[in-house]
Amino acid sequence: MSEKSVKTINKIEELAKETLKQIDNKKNPQINVPLRSLSNTWFDEKEGILRMGDKAQKRYFMNLSHTKKFMQTLLVADECKKLINSGKTTSIRDMFYSLKRPVANSTKDHVFADQNESDPILEDLEVTLDVMREDLHLFANSKGALVGNITIKDSGDTIDARKMGSGGWAIPSIVEPEVIEFKDVDADYILFIEKDAVWRRFNEDKFWKNHNCIITHGQGMAARGNRRLIHRLAKEHNLPVYCLVDNDPWGFYIYSVLKQGSINLAFESKRMAVPKARFLGLSSFDEEKFKIPPQVRLPLQQVDIKRCKEMLNYEWFKNKTWQTEIKHMLDKGVKLEIEALSRRGITFITDEYLPTKMETKDWLD
Amino acid sequence: MSEKSVKTINKIEELAKETLKQIDNKKNPQINVPLRSLSNTWFDEKEGILRMGDKAQKRYFMNLSHTKKFMQTLLVADECKKLINSGKTTSIRDMFYSLKRPVANSTKDHVFADQNESDPILEDLEVTLDVMREDLHLFANSKGALVGNITIKDSGDTIDARKMGSGGWAIPSIVEPEVIEFKDVDADYILFIEKDAVWRRFNEDKFWKNHNCIITHGQGMAARGNRRLIHRLAKEHNLPVYCLVDNDPWGFYIYSVLKQGSINLAFESKRMAVPKARFLGLSSFDEEKFKIPPQVRLPLQQVDIKRCKEMLNYEWFKNKTWQTEIKHMLDKGVKLEIEALSRRGITFITDEYLPTKMETKDWLD
Repeated sequence: MSEKSVKTINKIEELAKETLKQIDNKKNPQINVPLRSLSNTWFDEKEGILRMGDKAQKRYFMNLSHTKKFMQTLLVADECKKLINSGKTTSIRDMFYSLKRPVANSTKDHVFADQNESDPILEDLEVTLDVMREDLHLFANSKGALVGNITIKDSGDTIDARKMGSGGWAIPSIVEPEVIEFKDVDADYILFIEKDAVWRRFNEDKFWKNHNCIITHGQGMAARGNRRLIHRLAKEHNLPVYCLVDNDPWGFYIYSVLKQGSINLAFESKRMAVPKARFLGLSSFDEEKFKIPPQVRLPLQQVDIKRCKEMLNYEWFKNKTWQTEIKHMLDKGVKLEIEALSRRGITFITDEYLPTKMETKDWLD
Repeated sequence: MSEKSVKTINKIEELAKETLKQIDNKKNPQINVPLRSLSNTWFDEKEGILRMGDKAQKRYFMNLSHTKKFMQTLLVADECKKLINSGKTTSIRDMFYSLKRPVANSTKDHVFADQNESDPILEDLEVTLDVMREDLHLFANSKGALVGNITIKDSGDTIDARKMGSGGWAIPSIVEPEVIEFKDVDADYILFIEKDAVWRRFNEDKFWKNHNCIITHGQGMAARGNRRLIHRLAKEHNLPVYCLVDNDPWGFYIYSVLKQGSINLAFESKRMAVPKARFLGLSSFDEEKFKIPPQVRLPLQQVDIKRCKEMLNYEWFKNKTWQTEIKHMLDKGVKLEIEALSRRGITFITDEYLPTKMETKDWLD
């Protein structure tokens, strides 16, 4: 068993022992669960990441409105301990089914009736123990692929990402050092691309070879495995990270989650966020700069405008360049997809757009 | 340029020449576009696939309600010819943006205003020329991954799917013989799994090694690349194909599209469908057979019941075993996810469920 697994099991056992001690002392058993809410989230400007504050909620066994959650928390902890001991990993959906069973002596009430109930308890356990979901041997769905100037050791297999054809290496959901090691990292930077179809263009044009980098895509928002992988690469190998997303509020959001973390899971930022990630494009100013014909514009919808206005108020979008960027989008009233660049030619994006952006350091921090 | 590309370009040029000839002869230019509708779809029982009938629609240039589509069809054909000549591939979204431009002498009307307009024209072109989208160098999004006892040559790179770690090889969207070759196929069969999280269980337990097979997942419905890959493997290497999906109408549907093809794209069945694919589970009878506790059942929703009833009437679900299967689901009023098996233990699915199913040949054709 890895050192980390031993530590995680110790933490679970500490939680259980503390509860037993409280019972022995005839006290009302309680668990301190840090609050995962907007009100307990703050932007750490120095580190450049979202953080969870120190507000916590006491969860009591002898409190009618807490009892069920108290039981659920301990049962999830128990399942996780079994899981780590078995050396296996499983999905959060499996975890739900493992505990979709009647509460002792009840034929009606289930420990969990729905995954919407078990997922938050799992997140409570993560913050209570201060461990990542992956340390509990649990994973969510995986998405995304990678190619480039790096060799990856995955579960003992050596994967040369320079020789992964048109498909690439599918990024798994658990990329902790026990499973994934990095070898021969020759790349100068990592390029994260929102869309797999655009990533395919970059791979077909061997962009990673010609520009000595690693390219990865998220099939939309980057999944946990992808975020953690980029975080580790950026940190352990001091690699710059560049993001290429649509020029719309959703693209901005994908970038900001990768960079600073998300409000919902602020407690994970320190192990997932990539504060030095840079926004390469598409910028609201690219249309003029790169002479993109106006016909490929898409009008901003009401929901886009609303989202832009929300973003203008986020602490982490408060610097002048981002305010200018978002306001320019609102002023123009249009958004632009990455694929719109193909109006200038299929390989315009790899031949001209990206190289120009990199050479002129035309990015946002 | 590959032989196939030369053939495809010839077909495009034939279409253009025929149009020019009609103009020279002062005839109203027309294109014969086969109909892609339910009324022009039939189930070929002998081959076991859905097929497109021989109804076609004449698309005239000199007909006000046809003129725009006539122009669009020729412009898409022209773009595809350029694409094939360039040796590049691109996404159907890129294709839309390439033609999102004003019609000559108009500032208002665009060739295409929306991708919902360009995709059907592209499909029209596919059936008119009798080529696959991939032959036109176009791709949709990719999904899914693969590991197992096979080596794959992808764009010149050799990928040993026995050494792909926990992530696997990401299946690209274009898997034609020009790009993807199969080497050292030692597997006895292919197992297609609906869910990536379940596939991960199979990979972690090295199921493909212990049972000498290839395992692939679809992240839900199998994408074109995945279907075509399984089709080629099944045909070229005479491999049986087994499907593992949720026990619900959506799972049945995923299986049936993989096996017989879909109504919308019936013209592709002969190059995509896998008529010998077998439905391994989860069957509506598995709950009893494998002693799955009733707590993990989910009630059928109205939409499930409606879908089941529709399926009972499809020609390709008319055989006795499938009628019994679907009716049993309706009688019980419940559905079951693959993950429900983990109630019997995390590795129950790989240790007991799958091996028992295979040994007792407990599948549906």
